[in-house]
Amino acid sequence: MDNKFKTQKDYALKTLGEARAKGEVDTDMLSLIDYINSLQDYYTTSSCAGRTSVFFDPGSKKDSDWVGKWHRKVMPEEVSEALKRAPGNGIIWFMHEPTIIHITCRTIENASSLVDLARNSGYKKVGILSFKDDRIIVEVCGTERIDAPMAIEGRKIISDKYLNELTQLANDKFGKGMLRLNRLMKALNELEKR
Amino acid sequence: MDNKFKTQKDYALKTLGEARAKGEVDTDMLSLIDYINSLQDYYTTSSCAGRTSVFFDPGSKKDSDWVGKWHRKVMPEEVSEALKRAPGNGIIWFMHEPTIIHITCRTIENASSLVDLARNSGYKKVGILSFKDDRIIVEVCGTERIDAPMAIEGRKIISDKYLNELTQLANDKFGKGMLRLNRLMKALNELEKR
Repeated sequence: MDNKFKTQKDYALKTLGEARAKGEVDTDMLSLIDYINSLQDYYTTSSCAGRTSVFFDPGSKKDSDWVGKWHRKVMPEEVSEALKRAPGNGIIWFMHEPTIIHITCRTIENASSLVDLARNSGYKKVGILSFKDDRIIVEVCGTERIDAPMAIEGRKIISDKYLNELTQLANDKFGKGMLRLNRLMKALNELEKR
Repeated sequence: MDNKFKTQKDYALKTLGEARAKGEVDTDMLSLIDYINSLQDYYTTSSCAGRTSVFFDPGSKKDSDWVGKWHRKVMPEEVSEALKRAPGNGIIWFMHEPTIIHITCRTIENASSLVDLARNSGYKKVGILSFKDDRIIVEVCGTERIDAPMAIEGRKIISDKYLNELTQLANDKFGKGMLRLNRLMKALNELEKR
């Protein structure tokens, strides 16, 4: 399995390098990703520092889609513009999602240490996702989110004032998420020293 | 470990029996819980079919609290009454949370089968939570939620009309959650036959 882990890690780092060249990697995550990938027993597969979005849910997962998506703080006007572009059916949601990081671990013991460490850094949603194909993936998630409906079947159901409040709250949560990421980074430094 | 699993399971079933006698177990979950507990390699530790709540977040997790909590469909008036009772500081949220079930598994292989089966039943958030004390716990979670702020620092920021819309959406989601639970139950029946 060790050789397999090494091969999978090399492949993941190659893919990451390509995504990075195209500007597809969340820049707020780069130092954390690089740090995790520098550790012998771990590598990242996907990660997002947090994002605010306008989401279209037509009732089936298959056709759902983002109308707008920002991996940073946003202005109410940006959200409002996205809402105008949204389809006239289904439910249009204002969403803020917390940090999510997927980390592949060499052994179950590595995964178990990482789970403890992420919990101690303030992440409440931490778990081992998969054992598929000898791959052990730990998911680290924040919990603070916003999921507020903005329009139903083409009917706008929120006021501009409420949209301002949602945007400000989302931006606050984004800031808090970055602080928690820094705590995780410090804790990972301790892991290295063990 | 097998003996340990049996002891832990017996203890969990005793605790469950006591909670049930006091009416503390979510009645919508009873048949699923009983079924899982009848399987040799699994037992449930905590579970909730879904809930709508009014949640007080003062900015620190320590002092956060529920102002109202319903494991069923709700009426807008009930939510409105809870909002009136809420503290005059922090953020008061309207929340709807999906099904959550914790299932302890005898072996890693049992856990892995359960993870696959729950994903195939439509649960997107499924993972192994812990390996602590020889205990392997799988968490099965729905994803559809609502997290909408209703008041900030004593200032009500939603209209009664918007509250009606939130309540109706929450009730719809509760109904869908119950259908997904039924699918999981049927899939578990297949697990038994293997």
